Amino acid sequence: MIKTDILIIGAGPTGLFAVFEAGLLKLKCHLIDALPQAGGQCAEIYPKKPIYDIPGFPEVLAGDLVDNLMEQIKSFQPGFTLGERAETIEKLEDGSFVVTTNKGIKHNAPVVAIAGGLGSFEPRKPLLDNLAKFEDKGVAYMIKDPEVYRDKKVVIAGGGDSALDWSIFLADVAAQVTLVHRRNEFRGALDSVEKVQELKNQGKLNLITPAEIIALNGDEALESVLIRKISDAKEELVLEVDDFIPLFGLSPKLGPIGDWGLEIEKNAIKVDTFDYQTNIPGIYAIGDVNTYPGKLKLILCGFHEATLMCQSAFQKIHPDKKYVMKYTTVGGVSGFDGTKKEAPKAVVKKIE
Amino acid sequence: MIKTDILIIGAGPTGLFAVFEAGLLKLKCHLIDALPQAGGQCAEIYPKKPIYDIPGFPEVLAGDLVDNLMEQIKSFQPGFTLGERAETIEKLEDGSFVVTTNKGIKHNAPVVAIAGGLGSFEPRKPLLDNLAKFEDKGVAYMIKDPEVYRDKKVVIAGGGDSALDWSIFLADVAAQVTLVHRRNEFRGALDSVEKVQELKNQGKLNLITPAEIIALNGDEALESVLIRKISDAKEELVLEVDDFIPLFGLSPKLGPIGDWGLEIEKNAIKVDTFDYQTNIPGIYAIGDVNTYPGKLKLILCGFHEATLMCQSAFQKIHPDKKYVMKYTTVGGVSGFDGTKKEAPKAVVKKIE
Ligand SMILES: Cc1cc2nc3c(=O)[nH]c(=O)nc-3n(C[C@H](O)[C@H](O)[C@H](O)COP(=O)(O)OP(=O)(O)OC[C@H]3O[C@@H](n4cnc5c(N)ncnc54)[C@H](O)[C@@H]3O)c2cc1C
Ligand SMILES: Cc1cc2nc3c(=O)[nH]c(=O)nc-3n(C[C@H](O)[C@H](O)[C@H](O)COP(=O)(O)OP(=O)(O)OC[C@H]3O[C@@H](n4cnc5c(N)ncnc54)[C@H](O)[C@@H]3O)c2cc1C
Repeated sequence: MIKTDILIIGAGPTGLFAVFEAGLLKLKCHLIDALPQAGGQCAEIYPKKPIYDIPGFPEVLAGDLVDNLMEQIKSFQPGFTLGERAETIEKLEDGSFVVTTNKGIKHNAPVVAIAGGLGSFEPRKPLLDNLAKFEDKGVAYMIKDPEVYRDKKVVIAGGGDSALDWSIFLADVAAQVTLVHRRNEFRGALDSVEKVQELKNQGKLNLITPAEIIALNGDEALESVLIRKISDAKEELVLEVDDFIPLFGLSPKLGPIGDWGLEIEKNAIKVDTFDYQTNIPGIYAIGDVNTYPGKLKLILCGFHEATLMCQSAFQKIHPDKKYVMKYTTVGGVSGFDGTKKEAPKAVVKKIE
Repeated sequence: MIKTDILIIGAGPTGLFAVFEAGLLKLKCHLIDALPQAGGQCAEIYPKKPIYDIPGFPEVLAGDLVDNLMEQIKSFQPGFTLGERAETIEKLEDGSFVVTTNKGIKHNAPVVAIAGGLGSFEPRKPLLDNLAKFEDKGVAYMIKDPEVYRDKKVVIAGGGDSALDWSIFLADVAAQVTLVHRRNEFRGALDSVEKVQELKNQGKLNLITPAEIIALNGDEALESVLIRKISDAKEELVLEVDDFIPLFGLSPKLGPIGDWGLEIEKNAIKVDTFDYQTNIPGIYAIGDVNTYPGKLKLILCGFHEATLMCQSAFQKIHPDKKYVMKYTTVGGVSGFDGTKKEAPKAVVKKIE
């Protein structure tokens, strides 16, 4: 069982920044996210797009914002359970909570902060009969560790940024990459489209368009896919592959959290703006996932909510301690890894 | 009379970011600040110190944060009335407000946002009989435009960062700079202290310590100061100068805003967290100056408050319009200067 002070569900910008604010209060955090990487919508949907309304950044790429947040929280050594969905919650006799993921991993903490955004990102799956049979045996909807595909024969399906970018990346890793898409046109960043064209011209990537995968075959694990060209001839071909990665996009679903007994309004969790606590004491909701009068689903609002939430969590965890807030400029930042950042001190020095 | 959509009192980080959020809603802003420069506490008290809890910045100098905010709001062309204190407020028949400064400048707007921090920064003045007589006639407590001192004979008093830094700066501008301090020791950044020592050694700066200025003389304008050495001999000398700049620090005072009929609690203005409006409709309070249950006097909280405030101000100014929020990443940022920032669009392109 993983134990921590604040268990954060959702590793988007709000959940990440909560780690920092908790760390200032000497509280440890562990994050669960359904995605294989931290960053939430910023990392999954628009990592290469600029955001203009993060205060102090006239412009910042969403992916860079996530990198900066990861750097900012590093010394507070957060734990991560990635690629798993928080499924159930249970309250123990001692008042603490146990959250279990879809893979059965259990997490225990006195405080739970739901920073689940629009919900846990779930893949759109192709409609293929025996798809489920091959899940984790050749079929994957997200790439957690690209090394898994080293020297393998891989077929990717899809026509957007993910399909393009992973085709480019795996072209260098896998033994063979085939990209299949229902149209001849791809939709993505110009340089990604151009790079795929270039790899294709160099023979480093097979392109089959317009086409779709219509069947999966294999004994235990996946062995081959059946591809049908979309044309009058409807020509079919069998392609021997180790892996099939359909990248048709992820869509967020509030999912199991909706059944935790929390007050829900318009698909979001109702909270009090005093400390962003839900109707269940000890469970907080911050960022896009919550709602209150005046709520705006903006990153900068999640930062504020995370900060106030941590003050309240501190009181819950240490009912006897009084916390006196110190400016970071004045008190510095003491990491759990022993590092200390602090402002250079003023000197008192004679001039003669 | 200066006219604008949102009149912001206080050009600290909160007031500055409000300009950005207002700009996204196509509302124009004008800021009043008692200080000669924008940036509030960050610029006045600790411009060269790092802040560690601005989300997305593992570390940022307070002065750089202000510079970044100025850059971020530039295209929304805010107006500034600097070096003046907002003194009185008056409500007109049409429901709009007129705010007048201590120098008599009038500003008219349908919405007023008080972002006054801990109050308007007021200088600590030395106790000298005829000090007031020479104000603006040789005596100044803040430096608004250093060019005023070109080729002048200047005496600066004080032993902290401001006294050190302005002595260094003016050594290159003025005909003569004399630094007077009650002690031999100065308190400030190490490199500032060392630089002053160096300038003194090179004969580019006169240093008189431990000493204090005990009298001012002049007919109309300041002509000389009387300096007394702090020692058993109590030796006195007359120094001919054009300017006397006592830099004994600024301290914030809520001041006249305290008499505007706003509900005050612990020296801060009470607001509703729905939109950070005060008890007087149309007057908002954001940042360090406000209070509500759970309030933290942090920069990142001011950013959130400014953002929600602007939404409410928009409804007040345009009661008939419905504003649908668009992410900056999606809608871009259209400056009032005709510039437009936007994310590169995805292409739809054939690969063959
Ligand atoms: C194209 C686009 C452009 C945008 N532009 C801007 C902009 O310019 N400015 C701005 O402020 N905002 C913008 N946004 C919105 C911004 O991205 C969100 O406000 C922000 O990501 C919310 O952060 P969060 O941490 O609250 O949630 P999210 O980023 O949504 O992260 C939530 C995470 O929780 C995980 N999760 C949820 N439930 C579970 C569960 N049960 N188990 C495990 N994991 C779970 C999800 O997988 C997800 O990773 C934009 C959004 C999009 C899509
Ligand atoms: C040494 C120090 C270290 C700090 N470290 C941190 C930190 O690490 N993290 C953090 O989040 N915060 C920190 N803070 C606090 C932070 O600086 C404040 O929260 C922030 O400046 C508040 O911004 P603001 O815009 O609300 O107000 P301010 O920055 O106080 O600006 C208010 C402005 O309003 C002006 N004003 C007020 N009344 C009037 C009037 N009647 N007429 C004209 N002008 C007026 C003032 O002159 C001032 O310039 C620190 C503060 C100090 C002093």
